Amino acid sequence: MLSVEEARARILEHVAPLGTERVALDAAARRVLAADITSREPIPPFDNSAMDGYALRAEDISAASAESPVSLRLVGEVAAGAEQLPTLSEGEALRIFTGAPVPPSANTVIEQEAVSADDGQVTLVAPVRPGNHIRPKGEDITLGSVVLRRGSELGPAEIGVLATLGYAAVEVSRQPRVAILGTGDELVPPGEPLRPGQIRDSNAYYLAAAVRRAGGIPLALGIVGDDEPALRERLTQAADADLLLTSGGVSVGEHDLVKRVLSELGSIAFWRVRVRPGKPLAFGLLGSTPVLGLPGNPVSAAVTFELFGRPAICRMLGATSIERPLISARLTGATLHRTDRRQYLRCRLATAEGVLMAHPAGNQGSHITTSLVGASGLLIVYEGEGAVHDGDTVPVLLLNDGMPWGV
Amino acid sequence: MLSVEEARARILEHVAPLGTERVALDAAARRVLAADITSREPIPPFDNSAMDGYALRAEDISAASAESPVSLRLVGEVAAGAEQLPTLSEGEALRIFTGAPVPPSANTVIEQEAVSADDGQVTLVAPVRPGNHIRPKGEDITLGSVVLRRGSELGPAEIGVLATLGYAAVEVSRQPRVAILGTGDELVPPGEPLRPGQIRDSNAYYLAAAVRRAGGIPLALGIVGDDEPALRERLTQAADADLLLTSGGVSVGEHDLVKRVLSELGSIAFWRVRVRPGKPLAFGLLGSTPVLGLPGNPVSAAVTFELFGRPAICRMLGATSIERPLISARLTGATLHRTDRRQYLRCRLATAEGVLMAHPAGNQGSHITTSLVGASGLLIVYEGEGAVHDGDTVPVLLLNDGMPWGV
Repeated sequence: MLSVEEARARILEHVAPLGTERVALDAAARRVLAADITSREPIPPFDNSAMDGYALRAEDISAASAESPVSLRLVGEVAAGAEQLPTLSEGEALRIFTGAPVPPSANTVIEQEAVSADDGQVTLVAPVRPGNHIRPKGEDITLGSVVLRRGSELGPAEIGVLATLGYAAVEVSRQPRVAILGTGDELVPPGEPLRPGQIRDSNAYYLAAAVRRAGGIPLALGIVGDDEPALRERLTQAADADLLLTSGGVSVGEHDLVKRVLSELGSIAFWRVRVRPGKPLAFGLLGSTPVLGLPGNPVSAAVTFELFGRPAICRMLGATSIERPLISARLTGATLHRTDRRQYLRCRLATAEGVLMAHPAGNQGSHITTSLVGASGLLIVYEGEGAVHDGDTVPVLLLNDGMPWGV
Repeated sequence: MLSVEEARARILEHVAPLGTERVALDAAARRVLAADITSREPIPPFDNSAMDGYALRAEDISAASAESPVSLRLVGEVAAGAEQLPTLSEGEALRIFTGAPVPPSANTVIEQEAVSADDGQVTLVAPVRPGNHIRPKGEDITLGSVVLRRGSELGPAEIGVLATLGYAAVEVSRQPRVAILGTGDELVPPGEPLRPGQIRDSNAYYLAAAVRRAGGIPLALGIVGDDEPALRERLTQAADADLLLTSGGVSVGEHDLVKRVLSELGSIAFWRVRVRPGKPLAFGLLGSTPVLGLPGNPVSAAVTFELFGRPAICRMLGATSIERPLISARLTGATLHRTDRRQYLRCRLATAEGVLMAHPAGNQGSHITTSLVGASGLLIVYEGEGAVHDGDTVPVLLLNDGMPWGV
């Protein structure tokens, strides 16, 4: 039997980053950067005012006090977007608005609430330090600095930074096209009635949503049962894909046509991995397309997708981080026995006084689809002897993509 | 000045759930359920085998032991998807495969690894308890139970459960169309060169990505400066939208054409909210379209979108949870002084031995766009006196949507 790490390493050996493409910035959300982003300008591009107020020379009001206020002559104003900047001389001030460039002849800004302005004059009752309410050029981003790294996923913050830096389009990795095939004589699509002995194919739908969330584009190949010509034809359709995911048909059962046909058409290995849920797994190549054969049980398919499928997609995307974040939490409400297989338990996360608590879902059977609903993490019980007890620190893979998070 | 809660309550008074629409299941990911989902079948729909092995009657082998093994006659086999089920009599066993229905005449299953099978016989050396390796009908979902609630966001797990229950299409709430308008003479789109005094409009791009992530559909209205006819024309385009977001032009500055035109065309209130970043805020109606006027500083726009814009979108979606999850963490590496305004600080989260730690980003200036990159939470410092110290428990709004999470 292979360890999770051995199985993943063997898969990733055959998976390489795909090519890149240029997309408009407004279509770049959730894509992965294909090149470092270096600033071509400092941000802010010029010293500017953080307030609506007055720009002046700090040295002119260094002696101002409530007893002896200092008045400055108002000689103009600067609004945001102003291109021509007035020059200040001794004893002069400018009206200035938030975001407006601070002229080089001024060196500080005082907010309008702190002064009295009247009749072409502004009067101050206290000194102001140089640089007050000025956002210096380059304070956010210096010219030539690497602001975003290749392999970063683009969220709203990254998109905002790219806009700030003047990137109207950006080089991102191509999204992997992931073909998904359900196998099994017992499977029926969701819209059809069940005959005795049949169940609905939920894996294809789960996996399509999970592939999309991982950054891939799902291609639905449907369901095949014990029909060799149909199976061969569907597998042909997968030739254009960057990855083929199958579910079911990889166990030791004798009814696994899929296993036989895959072995004939490609180079496929069937593995037993020391993991629960999800022991049987297949991996290989069909032509040049990597094929990952996931177990048929819904929870096993979901967990093995997380452990092996999502990292393959992230690698194709050139993502810096190909795994879910691994955090630590305290086990709550359960004693978990170690076995010779690594266990991944669906859990809910909650915090109390800054301590992160992981509650495993009640029924961890690999057919309990409802245990995946609301799970915010996969609690890991490593192989070994003994048990993990209530209150012990446990590692958790964080499934942090917008789904409910217990509070 | 309004509190955050007062401002939010006034906004939500004018925001109602939108209508619903039916979408195919494979297009339903990230949508919000518009009705409870009740199971129309038990899941699993029938007792089935969890293993490849043999189905038998537990009472036939109750005396089996290594010293006196019991052999049963193999009288047939049942594969997954089988519609016709053989009947077992005393002393008989059936070959059975994973997922295959267990015939009513059998009451237990033994895995193939635990028996010897040969020449039409299967031999056991130990008794097996009734129900062994059988997944009972309805164990995952009982008939008629409410499985998913109206207002839930559909992730892969929910999509999988809907497929399992036979929903090929599902009723979801309509996605709000959110018009986004940047205002300011100083703003230039990312693709154009900067003249002196100009900056790029990043808010429109940030907000479009954030609106999409919140479940809305962004409509870009572009940028308007000091051009009244252009502004009136853009605002007309917003009439079809479910929400209009503007950024900039809501402060007390005299250069705020937007403020004046919005006030003329609609019923708009300009608020000062006790929050940092983000004090100035406008809200009202333009025709029947709610308008939310966000500040122009990028960080202020982002934070006020989280506090006021995202909840409005979630309310339109009929989502159960309209706010980000509020969790608790321990402040790390900072002392934070309370003021009369509530502070929301961008922070990174990390865990150590099950304790969740929040590190505020270094520069919390409202123009520091890079402080949003990699922020996994907004640390809240409530209004008041004194300070929050290193190690104190602090509330954090979790920005948990797939972006990096410190480890």
